[in-house]
Amino acid sequence: MARQLFELCGTDPARRFSPYCWRSRMALAHKGLEAEVVPWRFTEKAAIAFAESDKVPVLVDGERRVADSWAIAEYLDAAYPDAPRLFAGAPAAQRFVNTWSDGVLLPALAKLIVSDIPPLLGAEDRAYFIESREKRFGQPLDQVTAGREARLPEFRALLMPLRLLLRAQPFLGGAAPDYGDYCVFGTLMWPRIVSPLPLLEPGDAVHAWQERMLDLFGGLARAAPAAAA
Amino acid sequence: MARQLFELCGTDPARRFSPYCWRSRMALAHKGLEAEVVPWRFTEKAAIAFAESDKVPVLVDGERRVADSWAIAEYLDAAYPDAPRLFAGAPAAQRFVNTWSDGVLLPALAKLIVSDIPPLLGAEDRAYFIESREKRFGQPLDQVTAGREARLPEFRALLMPLRLLLRAQPFLGGAAPDYGDYCVFGTLMWPRIVSPLPLLEPGDAVHAWQERMLDLFGGLARAAPAAAA
Repeated sequence: MARQLFELCGTDPARRFSPYCWRSRMALAHKGLEAEVVPWRFTEKAAIAFAESDKVPVLVDGERRVADSWAIAEYLDAAYPDAPRLFAGAPAAQRFVNTWSDGVLLPALAKLIVSDIPPLLGAEDRAYFIESREKRFGQPLDQVTAGREARLPEFRALLMPLRLLLRAQPFLGGAAPDYGDYCVFGTLMWPRIVSPLPLLEPGDAVHAWQERMLDLFGGLARAAPAAAA
Repeated sequence: MARQLFELCGTDPARRFSPYCWRSRMALAHKGLEAEVVPWRFTEKAAIAFAESDKVPVLVDGERRVADSWAIAEYLDAAYPDAPRLFAGAPAAQRFVNTWSDGVLLPALAKLIVSDIPPLLGAEDRAYFIESREKRFGQPLDQVTAGREARLPEFRALLMPLRLLLRAQPFLGGAAPDYGDYCVFGTLMWPRIVSPLPLLEPGDAVHAWQERMLDLFGGLARAAPAAAA
């Protein structure tokens, strides 16, 4: 059976924007593994029920089904120990980068870009997305992102630990990227795909790192259609 | 020549409160290495000039002099490769924990506890500390920490990436502590030594982890005189 990765998209299957799916897509590339893209929409819960998950990414690898981006990364290093490792030491050390991406970076991004997503979705998914996100934020999505340009400096300040690190070394993983890089980079692919908002300033060490990441694997991520021209 | 660690203190040499010195003290204990405490005060720049640094920690190990807590950790793993490793893989993976401790945790703590420090200092250091910190904050230190009890929920929210991680594994390093743990824990020793402010709630996973850290090495850090009774 071929290897498959279920990835979130909207009406356009080429516009895959999930921050978690991008972590797994980059992790597969790091390991040198191909995987067919299976486009998946928010309301297609039935299509991934076989993996005992209601969220993507879901990886199908022969007889194995793995849900959750962190579990997929651990699985890939265990199943393919001879391919370049995602975790230089134990996975423990990268986990803080992962929880920071989930608990700090992603919520901050959501408040800047969540209103850019509904136009990319089909009717059924759009209704689901708007209802679930308005419930989460307690207000209409346009109000969540109102005045977002003025909040960019605050967002950029949040990236400071990353910036300090990237002044000291080229990648979170050191001389070369590892799964810590993919956690942060994958999260930043989400706004890149869906929003025209210019999040990073050209002089920022984080911007320079993002450019290096976009070039990896023959420009795999750069080739994805971005919202900003 | 004996091994020595220059550590910041005030009038009481037993009350060592530097977040960076605690990182190095715990790192030495992790490696099973003893080091004489050399008490050092803010204004004693001349006493550490030999290490080409104006800040502590400074480690003297035979002929070697190493300044800066991160450099000390790297030095210890390189010089004592057979002792338990501070960095399970390459040091790169822990560096994000270090920059988060420096760039996020420490500034947030400073706004809660900086006014607790002058009473611990001798006259000369006190004048130096107040002048330099009031310049940094642009206001009197009492004003910096005013209303701090009301800001505790905001501080605790900042610990979320740490909390998410510590729900998934007992230490930042995984099953056992590594230098990532000492970065965060050392930073939290600073308020513990100088301030009565109750930073963590007992039910918090971060609090439970801090208790485990205080127990390490025969209660090395727990034995340090804390400000809160």
